[in-house]
Amino acid sequence: MTEQLFSYGQLKAVTLKVFKAIGCNDHHAELATSVLLSADIRGIDSHGIARLSGYVRLWEAGRINPDPQIKIVHETLSTAVVDGDAGLGLVVAPFAMEIAIQKAQKVGTGWVSVNNSNHFGIAGYHAMMALKHDMIGMAMTNASALVAPTFSTERMLGTNPIAVAIPAGQQPPFVADFATTTAANGKLEILQRKNADAPLGWVQTESGVPTTDANILKKNGALLPLGSDREHGSHKGYALGSIVDIFSAVLSGASYGPWAPPFPAYVPMPENMPGKGLGHFLGAMRVDAFRPAEEFKSHMDNWIERFRKAQPSAAHKKVLIPGDPERETEKERMSLGIPLAGSVVKDLKELAQKFSIDF
Amino acid sequence: MTEQLFSYGQLKAVTLKVFKAIGCNDHHAELATSVLLSADIRGIDSHGIARLSGYVRLWEAGRINPDPQIKIVHETLSTAVVDGDAGLGLVVAPFAMEIAIQKAQKVGTGWVSVNNSNHFGIAGYHAMMALKHDMIGMAMTNASALVAPTFSTERMLGTNPIAVAIPAGQQPPFVADFATTTAANGKLEILQRKNADAPLGWVQTESGVPTTDANILKKNGALLPLGSDREHGSHKGYALGSIVDIFSAVLSGASYGPWAPPFPAYVPMPENMPGKGLGHFLGAMRVDAFRPAEEFKSHMDNWIERFRKAQPSAAHKKVLIPGDPERETEKERMSLGIPLAGSVVKDLKELAQKFSIDF
Repeated sequence: MTEQLFSYGQLKAVTLKVFKAIGCNDHHAELATSVLLSADIRGIDSHGIARLSGYVRLWEAGRINPDPQIKIVHETLSTAVVDGDAGLGLVVAPFAMEIAIQKAQKVGTGWVSVNNSNHFGIAGYHAMMALKHDMIGMAMTNASALVAPTFSTERMLGTNPIAVAIPAGQQPPFVADFATTTAANGKLEILQRKNADAPLGWVQTESGVPTTDANILKKNGALLPLGSDREHGSHKGYALGSIVDIFSAVLSGASYGPWAPPFPAYVPMPENMPGKGLGHFLGAMRVDAFRPAEEFKSHMDNWIERFRKAQPSAAHKKVLIPGDPERETEKERMSLGIPLAGSVVKDLKELAQKFSIDF
Repeated sequence: MTEQLFSYGQLKAVTLKVFKAIGCNDHHAELATSVLLSADIRGIDSHGIARLSGYVRLWEAGRINPDPQIKIVHETLSTAVVDGDAGLGLVVAPFAMEIAIQKAQKVGTGWVSVNNSNHFGIAGYHAMMALKHDMIGMAMTNASALVAPTFSTERMLGTNPIAVAIPAGQQPPFVADFATTTAANGKLEILQRKNADAPLGWVQTESGVPTTDANILKKNGALLPLGSDREHGSHKGYALGSIVDIFSAVLSGASYGPWAPPFPAYVPMPENMPGKGLGHFLGAMRVDAFRPAEEFKSHMDNWIERFRKAQPSAAHKKVLIPGDPERETEKERMSLGIPLAGSVVKDLKELAQKFSIDF
């Protein structure tokens, strides 16, 4: 199916109405819409409006509470645990990040582990909330198990992303936001739509053999940790994904490892879950808790300028800074529009009809 | 040259005397010896006693201060910046980690960025200092530039390791400690000694072409970030190495990126260094700042037991937990002895002679 272009305003209007229709209050609907669409603007299409119908199905299955009483259940001066009350991760994570920022304002840093939540959109949104306060922001989340640890055939971890946002002065901020797998699941989905093969090193079969089959996850295959295989450091990607799982879910009391709740509503919940819902981990560090903010930001400018000037190889024009590609996409899409795949448009039309929304 | 076996006691005796001979006080010599040899015990041979003569050469070149006045130059309730006074990283990093632990005792977490330091041995040692306090420990450091960012031919980052140590209850702790490159430089050195090729994906030539030449770093080649190439996520390894560089050196006021001071004393110091010496970043999070420690540790036991039971692929016997291989090596070497390469033994004999030490 062909792509169609929409303005940010068009997508915002329909998304807002859908969130209100499932029972979100005005503030939560606004926030969830901002977080969700930040993915579409930044070019991470797998985590944006394409997932809206998925959230609605989770709500229909009774797995998402549209009007959660999000609260702190434990805290110290620099830490907190937040219970998301089964709310949308899209609103639970910003709530938790605000607490991290407030704690950082008082004691230099703030660290919040969250239980009883759901999918939180792109990690980068939450990490970037810290930037306007001259803070470094960090965000991670566990997710339903699609990834096999090194030497294993069993899916034990989610794609468990890490985002780190670091403010600069004249330069735009450094924003890294990546799954701890070789390739994110969204990249596989793009290949599936194109009927194309995946590069070797992204996925393996049910018996642990490397394969190029982009549909292998539907046949009990698994995504591979960053590094692809032991010889190329997959044990490091496995360790990173594990750290995200433990910080997000074991620290908070959420459900971890193979027991993380699935995003697709048709997949039954795991049995004997050791905790509540999905977990996140958010952090904020005030830059001037280390050195004067202007001094830090001017050195970040120097860092960024030097790395931009690194000698490119013959095959490439320039060296990029984490966040550059997303910023470029954002600029383009805010002026030219956001392209949606035909299947996503069809989904949205069905949603609009279900809730009697103009689209 | 053949390997020779030594007891921990033998290596400790000579190392201690060498550190004292260059002017370390008793406490610093003991500490530096413990940190350095923890690498040999755990099987990370490239970071242990094999580097002792390298530290001595840095001292001879006036780049290491054997009797540093290490001090806090800025702090908040949860953060500090430490000036290492050009001391051995082997003593500066534990000093900084103790501060992180003390801050965590008071406000839940502690985060210390260090400038004006030198090579700190294995990151895992410092992270593991947190374990006996029922804390999660983190340690990272920048290092001299050997790694080319994605799309670049220029060496801009060090192998910049990350270590995270997480306490468990009945199970041994989770200890991840890894370079943010596909392979650590030590792995290349082993291949060089064997005159063997490197797997494709570890290194590239001066012009950015993948190569199997294990000696390519001597020909202006570069190590590759974890992920190896863009298609396999090298931009993620590049981002991770950059985060380590920024947390360790830009936050602290150390020298960052391509300006990080080199470990080999014969390599001239970079010109126009933007900060002082090498940088580290140490963190400690009290587990009970999030949930009761016994509860957390019992869930970590459950996490570890479940991952150990993950279905192994046909080619492998079992799935490992980060820290397992090093623990196994430690057990073996403490009972059977520590094997040293002939070249390392020769180095040690020369050092012993220089300082009139029995060896």
